[in-house]
Amino acid sequence: MLILGIDPGYAIVGYGVLDTNGMKPEAYGVIRTEAGEKIEQRLSEIYDNMCELLRVFRPDHVAIEKLYFNTNEKTAINVSQARGVIILACVKCGVKVYEYTPLQVKMSVVGYGRAEKKQVMDMTKRLLGLKAIPKPDDAADALAIALCHANSIGSLLMNL
Amino acid sequence: MLILGIDPGYAIVGYGVLDTNGMKPEAYGVIRTEAGEKIEQRLSEIYDNMCELLRVFRPDHVAIEKLYFNTNEKTAINVSQARGVIILACVKCGVKVYEYTPLQVKMSVVGYGRAEKKQVMDMTKRLLGLKAIPKPDDAADALAIALCHANSIGSLLMNL
Repeated sequence: MLILGIDPGYAIVGYGVLDTNGMKPEAYGVIRTEAGEKIEQRLSEIYDNMCELLRVFRPDHVAIEKLYFNTNEKTAINVSQARGVIILACVKCGVKVYEYTPLQVKMSVVGYGRAEKKQVMDMTKRLLGLKAIPKPDDAADALAIALCHANSIGSLLMNL
Repeated sequence: MLILGIDPGYAIVGYGVLDTNGMKPEAYGVIRTEAGEKIEQRLSEIYDNMCELLRVFRPDHVAIEKLYFNTNEKTAINVSQARGVIILACVKCGVKVYEYTPLQVKMSVVGYGRAEKKQVMDMTKRLLGLKAIPKPDDAADALAIALCHANSIGSLLMNL
């Protein structure tokens, strides 16, 4: 099964494609939009790039991080707007979307809900058998989210 | 000129089509999504209905309210996600989007930034020569936003 993990944002959207057959990353990277561009243009680019990722990799599921805000209101609104078009792209491509909180990702990948960001990245690297932590951070986060979904699906199957 | 005013939401999106030639509403109403449906389905329906409104009325501009939150975080995220797909629909249809804060709408329609919701609706009714305040409230709000943009464009033209 192919899982596309998404770390939502409007300046940078992290993505990671995880093949659960062997638990290897197929691809990872980021969608970037220009700070100088209007938000409507940035949303349009995120949508187009998401559609392209879904077309190229044909993931079975998409796993996306749930938002939690302690930052400023403007950022919260813009990230949510971007998350809206990311989810829309999945629906329009007929791919099911699963959501996980940062706590769920930490619990799943590190086994400890209050784990540091660095620990999550380090465990992601180990679990995927990578030589280094994927760069940039947003891509590593996206792989952690995909990993969390893979674990969740695995437990689900084992419990059936 | 035709202006499509939008009061963004995810359960109800208010819309109002204003013809600045005679300052008459062409149409107004709401897009509703079911509370029991998943957010991805609701976002998809909002996008499809927005595309349909843009195709049917072919507005020259879209005016949408800027978000300001004092409500709970979950609502804020969902409304922002919906606003993201509404803006995306406009970009994909090649229609320019203008944003106004609630304060700008009140200033423009009532002439007083701390006006009550009821006063805004009453002035919208009068300025558009309607016999009653449009129902539901979200449609009336959308017409007020369109009116605000019409005023703003008017002032702009006069200042040229």
